Amino acid sequence: MNSFGVRFKFSTFGESHGKAIGCLVDGVPAGIEIDEEFIQNELNRRKPGQNEFATARSEDDKFEILSGIFEGKSTGTPIAGVIYNKNQKSRDYTNIKDIFRPGHADFTYFHKYGIRDYRGGGRSSARETANRVLAGAIAKLLLREVGIEIKSGICEVGGIEAKNFDFDYAKNSAIYALDKDIEEAQKEAILEAKNEHNSVGGVALIKIKNSPIGLGEPVYYKLDSLLAEAMMSINGVKAIEIGEGVNSSKLNGLENNDEIRKDGFLSNHSGGILGGISNGEDIDLKIYFKPTPSIFKSQKSIDTHNNELDCALKGRHDPCIAPRGSIVAEAMASIVMADMLLLNMGREIEGVKKYYH
Amino acid sequence: MNSFGVRFKFSTFGESHGKAIGCLVDGVPAGIEIDEEFIQNELNRRKPGQNEFATARSEDDKFEILSGIFEGKSTGTPIAGVIYNKNQKSRDYTNIKDIFRPGHADFTYFHKYGIRDYRGGGRSSARETANRVLAGAIAKLLLREVGIEIKSGICEVGGIEAKNFDFDYAKNSAIYALDKDIEEAQKEAILEAKNEHNSVGGVALIKIKNSPIGLGEPVYYKLDSLLAEAMMSINGVKAIEIGEGVNSSKLNGLENNDEIRKDGFLSNHSGGILGGISNGEDIDLKIYFKPTPSIFKSQKSIDTHNNELDCALKGRHDPCIAPRGSIVAEAMASIVMADMLLLNMGREIEGVKKYYH
Amino acid sequence: MNSFGVRFKFSTFGESHGKAIGCLVDGVPAGIEIDEEFIQNELNRRKPGQNEFATARSEDDKFEILSGIFEGKSTGTPIAGVIYNKNQKSRDYTNIKDIFRPGHADFTYFHKYGIRDYRGGGRSSARETANRVLAGAIAKLLLREVGIEIKSGICEVGGIEAKNFDFDYAKNSAIYALDKDIEEAQKEAILEAKNEHNSVGGVALIKIKNSPIGLGEPVYYKLDSLLAEAMMSINGVKAIEIGEGVNSSKLNGLENNDEIRKDGFLSNHSGGILGGISNGEDIDLKIYFKPTPSIFKSQKSIDTHNNELDCALKGRHDPCIAPRGSIVAEAMASIVMADMLLLNMGREIEGVKKYYH
Amino acid sequence: MNSFGVRFKFSTFGESHGKAIGCLVDGVPAGIEIDEEFIQNELNRRKPGQNEFATARSEDDKFEILSGIFEGKSTGTPIAGVIYNKNQKSRDYTNIKDIFRPGHADFTYFHKYGIRDYRGGGRSSARETANRVLAGAIAKLLLREVGIEIKSGICEVGGIEAKNFDFDYAKNSAIYALDKDIEEAQKEAILEAKNEHNSVGGVALIKIKNSPIGLGEPVYYKLDSLLAEAMMSINGVKAIEIGEGVNSSKLNGLENNDEIRKDGFLSNHSGGILGGISNGEDIDLKIYFKPTPSIFKSQKSIDTHNNELDCALKGRHDPCIAPRGSIVAEAMASIVMADMLLLNMGREIEGVKKYYH
Repeated sequence: MNSFGVRFKFSTFGESHGKAIGCLVDGVPAGIEIDEEFIQNELNRRKPGQNEFATARSEDDKFEILSGIFEGKSTGTPIAGVIYNKNQKSRDYTNIKDIFRPGHADFTYFHKYGIRDYRGGGRSSARETANRVLAGAIAKLLLREVGIEIKSGICEVGGIEAKNFDFDYAKNSAIYALDKDIEEAQKEAILEAKNEHNSVGGVALIKIKNSPIGLGEPVYYKLDSLLAEAMMSINGVKAIEIGEGVNSSKLNGLENNDEIRKDGFLSNHSGGILGGISNGEDIDLKIYFKPTPSIFKSQKSIDTHNNELDCALKGRHDPCIAPRGSIVAEAMASIVMADMLLLNMGREIEGVKKYYH
Repeated sequence: MNSFGVRFKFSTFGESHGKAIGCLVDGVPAGIEIDEEFIQNELNRRKPGQNEFATARSEDDKFEILSGIFEGKSTGTPIAGVIYNKNQKSRDYTNIKDIFRPGHADFTYFHKYGIRDYRGGGRSSARETANRVLAGAIAKLLLREVGIEIKSGICEVGGIEAKNFDFDYAKNSAIYALDKDIEEAQKEAILEAKNEHNSVGGVALIKIKNSPIGLGEPVYYKLDSLLAEAMMSINGVKAIEIGEGVNSSKLNGLENNDEIRKDGFLSNHSGGILGGISNGEDIDLKIYFKPTPSIFKSQKSIDTHNNELDCALKGRHDPCIAPRGSIVAEAMASIVMADMLLLNMGREIEGVKKYYH
Repeated sequence: MNSFGVRFKFSTFGESHGKAIGCLVDGVPAGIEIDEEFIQNELNRRKPGQNEFATARSEDDKFEILSGIFEGKSTGTPIAGVIYNKNQKSRDYTNIKDIFRPGHADFTYFHKYGIRDYRGGGRSSARETANRVLAGAIAKLLLREVGIEIKSGICEVGGIEAKNFDFDYAKNSAIYALDKDIEEAQKEAILEAKNEHNSVGGVALIKIKNSPIGLGEPVYYKLDSLLAEAMMSINGVKAIEIGEGVNSSKLNGLENNDEIRKDGFLSNHSGGILGGISNGEDIDLKIYFKPTPSIFKSQKSIDTHNNELDCALKGRHDPCIAPRGSIVAEAMASIVMADMLLLNMGREIEGVKKYYH
Repeated sequence: MNSFGVRFKFSTFGESHGKAIGCLVDGVPAGIEIDEEFIQNELNRRKPGQNEFATARSEDDKFEILSGIFEGKSTGTPIAGVIYNKNQKSRDYTNIKDIFRPGHADFTYFHKYGIRDYRGGGRSSARETANRVLAGAIAKLLLREVGIEIKSGICEVGGIEAKNFDFDYAKNSAIYALDKDIEEAQKEAILEAKNEHNSVGGVALIKIKNSPIGLGEPVYYKLDSLLAEAMMSINGVKAIEIGEGVNSSKLNGLENNDEIRKDGFLSNHSGGILGGISNGEDIDLKIYFKPTPSIFKSQKSIDTHNNELDCALKGRHDPCIAPRGSIVAEAMASIVMADMLLLNMGREIEGVKKYYH
């Protein structure tokens, strides 16, 4: 249950303060040049400790590949990537080891497993998502061979909404803001929350360009279903939309349908997916992050012995998880697309015959 | 790719105007009394042709079970259910067979497979969802053995929102409305759309009560991920929220965290799920349906030979898919919960030892 | 757990004396002409009641396809096939309902599930294998599009071994005998067992011709692993060999290795598979069937209340399951090959790029 | 396709002369004491370089666990184990890099993937099986909590057969011989092959004791099917038998059926499995290994440019793979049993209810 995908499949392991985290990527076609610098750059985009808008935890997130690559190319065998935890200093966890932090998975892990690695959230920590970015970078290397491109950015922080959506601008923004006019206000919202030992929520957009028509497998492996599953598996995501999304429920059919002409669709309310299959238009996702649950204000809670107490945490945290989370979402979208790309091969007999002759 | 679930797994088959649709439910524990009347009642809740708010297509949706039950009880072997299509009269499809209807999957199926069963949408038709209700009813029979209950209702139609949420009232409403004060306005919105040969969108709530703590398998089979996948696989769903959902992105951490006391959580912004695992509170989902794409107004489209044309459909359709769709969502939620219930067995060694001794 | 395969996947349902048995075949590429006469012919090869060497149970094994085919071709959606049980007369099962028949699954099903459909073995009956032949026939229609051919025949009955292996002769033999010189002796062994109310074991060969090089997915979805799994899932199979098989354990390396020349291998001890991947040579399997457990001699057993008794069955049975079983084995081999054929697409990037451009 | 199992699932990575090999074990129940010394002992049983009967390659096979264990116990999260390759000296592979070694996977990997890690067989090397022993040791820790025990030993080498089967004796034999009277002759056969730069085949027995009744999931996840799949995935295995196996095909029904009395079965021709489900008796497997393909005699072969040549390898190899292979088989059997143990939970409703109340 720590694996995702069918043909392009990845599995992850590791806890926040264990020796290492890592991933296993299975199903990568042989012969792809594995550009390790590109992978490191992708990891750097998610890396903590880069600026005042993110947690101060310092991890260099250098990865090491243990298998699956020979003379710079994928061999078709599983690619194992490991990231050693540098910042696993032997902290004193006495004060939190028995406490269930509100908004965290402490309570549910403890009740499910009867045991809990309390160091920094253990397996439930967002540190696990570095693996997704690593696997996602490999997926991107595959996708770019067929021209598929995936972008992301932040459209909203603490209720402050972007009006323009410039994915190129977002790349270089410290909070991956899509709208440079709104960026400052969004940054202030984050810093204000930080200064108050509180946190804010945010919203990210993901855009997938140049998808071939036909990706997605009806009816229980639809492209939109899998994207929804992938997005909802990211720490802190509480809602996901495709295309017109929430708003489509307020429209009528004539407004919401996308009319068609020879050279394409006249609008894209569907978000590039019809019947669970890509239609060649941009695939548009919107995902909503809750405010970081790690805050340093006093909160009512209980401990593992069911004693009531006031919980006042200390430490480091992201005042808003949406910016770093958007990079994870981009990675997960890449993985879904890579899986769909490979699964789609063999959908009709002429393609099969051509492949084998 | 026509299957869903790991331990409680169902697969479906069938096209809108083929001989039959049906499902195979695998993993049902042996010894459950299979109440066929209950199953039929569940199917009746989704059945078309019941009132003026739904399509006039007349199907009695009588199911037949072919296997897996002996002397009224499940035997642990796969349960096959079939629903024969009564209303598959040899219509004349000449006028639509080459046309891609806007908002439908015609375009994507044709391009993916190179062949398309154009009769009523074929496999992409919402008729397939009757199977889900059948399988969902069996899931409910399992869930009620451990006390889990699942309810649904409509909170919004064409932008008209409920203020009160009465799931018991919804059961007997013709449009499954949660708020009886708003119901009439919602009904009018549907009839108005119908009279204008148009359609409206809508929103449904799903509530899961009495879930044990601990259901959900981190990190890629989380309860919320799977619910999102399940919901997004339903025809016409474009967005999904868990708990506070979209709104959580506008809150700060102190507002959004659920504080904890001895006897439970003081609020339920999380929607009953923390770290992908149920925490014992109500599990709350909200799903957004687009307006039915089948409308009878003239729309621009193309045919399979890439000729541009004006498409003016005739026939029967649901002016709003949300009411019948909410029953399907309830079924899918039941299936996810049944799967999670069985998967969770074996999570820790004491339970395993007790089971075998 | 009633499904087999990843990309070409089939699931079965049904009990020996239930209403119907059937299968769901998912992953069939669109556009294949589905020759129903061919499928029926395949089913007829396995059908009971055809001659004195098989059970007298009379089933016409007419199948009906409920979905997945339109205008004679596969559409890429799941193909559901059903075979109604004609011969499910309301027999009196009183005498066997509480008895565990030696050599049968009665004992294990009862203890696993706490409930047992005792009518003719229920789910554990070899009647289930008709579904495999149905699904296997569809797999063959796919395989012949790329030239792969699969044959079978009986090489041994009750210890009487063939010296020659003529797969074409086997096709028309009443016991699918590979060696016409031995056939009579083998037939006599079967009839003798039948007359003595006993049964005999037998051995079948399967030969797969014209496999492309490269099928099989290391290291836990190897072609030989999957063939072994598939064969061992057939009722009554107790051993399986690939290529030189058992005998290879008695050879030295120089004898057993297949030397290679420009135009192919100089021998085929490997049975066409190296490292779990097809090497282009014939793939050769040998499978060993135990004698039918249904015999009519008195045997010691117990009942469900743990009372000891002498069990003396009456009824109809196959005195030797190997002949009809060989047809099932051929079908399972076809399904494995179809799955491997589709899975292999996407193994290296040049093929992926060619497919999408 | 580098993963095995459903509920107790493991995945492996790594090449013979890459940086490391390793495995990911998912689905281990929380709370099991992970005895690392026991795991290392298991690895040592398979380790190369221990005596004159095995390859001289020297690897200490020290493993490191990176995740999934906290304070000495499993936490329910994935356990990652890594074994660094010590003996990956930068050898000169020029002479073999373009040659297809007879009996090896060089030919098939090259044709499947278009690229090949030629260093020591890369992914196809038996070095991968160290991972299986690591994962198998963790499976054993689970199995012993419910009393299941798994043993193995060598019954035949180069055609020299054991008459007695003493699994306790085998544990301490340098070639894991089951029969001390035959051991010397078997050892001589191995050394003779070694001195002649040749190799010999062998046969191993696996015995599973104290299995609960009811393990195995009909009809495509039967216990015997999965054991066959698991065994056939091991390097060099060419045949597999359950219980009476090959010989059962020569018996009649009365001889082969196991009669039943109050206190158990009167014989065990079935090998402990009926209808794919364990019946409580010992589960008996026999697996046949081909002679090691790595021999140092001159053999005809071709290179990657299709030039014919004489291939005369040098290096280190196991003159007989059966002894070390039997340890791998024991590990794979443990993994299958662990998977079946967890899958079986939830087979009937009373067990489910008891678990949750």
